[in-house]
Amino acid sequence: MEYGDPQSVERMRADFDRQGAMQTMGITVSDVKPGQVILGMPFNPKFSQHHGFMHAGVITSGMDSACGFAALTLMDAESEVLTVEFKSSFLAPARGQSFRFEGDVIKAGRTLTFTEGRTIAVDGDKETKIATITATMMAVRGLKP
Amino acid sequence: MEYGDPQSVERMRADFDRQGAMQTMGITVSDVKPGQVILGMPFNPKFSQHHGFMHAGVITSGMDSACGFAALTLMDAESEVLTVEFKSSFLAPARGQSFRFEGDVIKAGRTLTFTEGRTIAVDGDKETKIATITATMMAVRGLKP
Amino acid sequence: MEYGDPQSVERMRADFDRQGAMQTMGITVSDVKPGQVILGMPFNPKFSQHHGFMHAGVITSGMDSACGFAALTLMDAESEVLTVEFKSSFLAPARGQSFRFEGDVIKAGRTLTFTEGRTIAVDGDKETKIATITATMMAVRGLKP
Amino acid sequence: MEYGDPQSVERMRADFDRQGAMQTMGITVSDVKPGQVILGMPFNPKFSQHHGFMHAGVITSGMDSACGFAALTLMDAESEVLTVEFKSSFLAPARGQSFRFEGDVIKAGRTLTFTEGRTIAVDGDKETKIATITATMMAVRGLKP
Repeated sequence: MEYGDPQSVERMRADFDRQGAMQTMGITVSDVKPGQVILGMPFNPKFSQHHGFMHAGVITSGMDSACGFAALTLMDAESEVLTVEFKSSFLAPARGQSFRFEGDVIKAGRTLTFTEGRTIAVDGDKETKIATITATMMAVRGLKP
Repeated sequence: MEYGDPQSVERMRADFDRQGAMQTMGITVSDVKPGQVILGMPFNPKFSQHHGFMHAGVITSGMDSACGFAALTLMDAESEVLTVEFKSSFLAPARGQSFRFEGDVIKAGRTLTFTEGRTIAVDGDKETKIATITATMMAVRGLKP
Repeated sequence: MEYGDPQSVERMRADFDRQGAMQTMGITVSDVKPGQVILGMPFNPKFSQHHGFMHAGVITSGMDSACGFAALTLMDAESEVLTVEFKSSFLAPARGQSFRFEGDVIKAGRTLTFTEGRTIAVDGDKETKIATITATMMAVRGLKP
Repeated sequence: MEYGDPQSVERMRADFDRQGAMQTMGITVSDVKPGQVILGMPFNPKFSQHHGFMHAGVITSGMDSACGFAALTLMDAESEVLTVEFKSSFLAPARGQSFRFEGDVIKAGRTLTFTEGRTIAVDGDKETKIATITATMMAVRGLKP
């Protein structure tokens, strides 16, 4: 896969920085490649559910952003990315010192891009896949940011 | 449908209050019935995506909690609720003064409960359905809170 | 909702008749309205799974067709419909004398249409909702049938 | 991963042979390993949609069976497998001389098993991934076949 535009990484990072949700949740960009984005987040009790694990919706926020920005890296300079739909499965409770959200493009089209992602909980040396996502992303042209 | 236990509403509200994510996102309980929970959230730029709409993962957090707590209202006193999986579809951008998250039980079983929900954006007198969810919830017994 | 074209019903029925899968499975059109299609199928052991219930994929075939054709009724004359993705949940075993597949458009756009559907098992006077679907449909223009 | 029972493969194949849907669709078992099942199907116009591609529901039937039987290989001798829900995405039209359905267990639990699968269209030397699935399977004990 190749970047959709010479400025793809800059545009992706600028869009990421404009996401209030990512800043508030403490989610940051770990790595960007064409069609792949990896994000990271430390455990934060402010975003827990009632057993003290991270909330499924917060885990999904990280996976959705990783997948959406992975799709954006392949889009042309006129395109913005919007989430059409996603499905998340929760394999294990979201506990750990930190979480890694990986998003990958599976098939990129002019309008729709299919993506897959996952959440890895990190606890010292131990890594556990705790959630997966499949998401459909849409390129929207002419949308003012 | 009937509450699973005389203390169902109290237990549901206590669990809700223990969710750091709900407090941090400013999501509150609007209404509880057997098998139905309605939550509310004012627009908050701290949880936006890059066009200034609410982040899809935050909208999903509200819908997931509404559905999970709707399932919990029908469970027995020994059961805790965990999200197995959900799928969310995003019909329109999440803009509005506030958002209403509705969660309904479609079919309750001893182990699995099927739920459906939706997000209504409210702008003055205007209400718009902007997202839907279908979620599978699981009753877990013997889990310490 | 209004038909997308004066010939919408004729086009929908012609496309339906061209679906080998519908004929082979014995699925027929029960009712068509703008944005809504209802199909029917008698129980058929040739499409069972290993407990003698109807196979989840066959039930999904009926719901997918109901939703896709519901979307098609609102599209313009140049558009064909393709399924982008769907999620099905199986609330109860698929047993019954016959099955009714209902598909409804929730939100129609120029490119994407969001739909919801369900399967009702019919046994004499008794009707049971046994499955639900949410499906994203895409209008494709310039595709030769 | 290890087989759930010394007779896992025999039980899986016996259940497969009892599925009327698999026989009628011409789907056969290509390979079985612990937690992985691969099925195959030749192109068949009797299961087409209206453009002559294979119907999305038929493709899903193959993926659902591959995933369900993959889950069954890890279950104990008293367990039967039922599909709780699945989501399928359709990356490309289902055309080809034959189709390979791959199902893999991602996480096996006592009650729920998470699986992923895909469909590969085969046309001479060319292989194309045309669809993906994520499915939740449930072990049911005490169900008479």
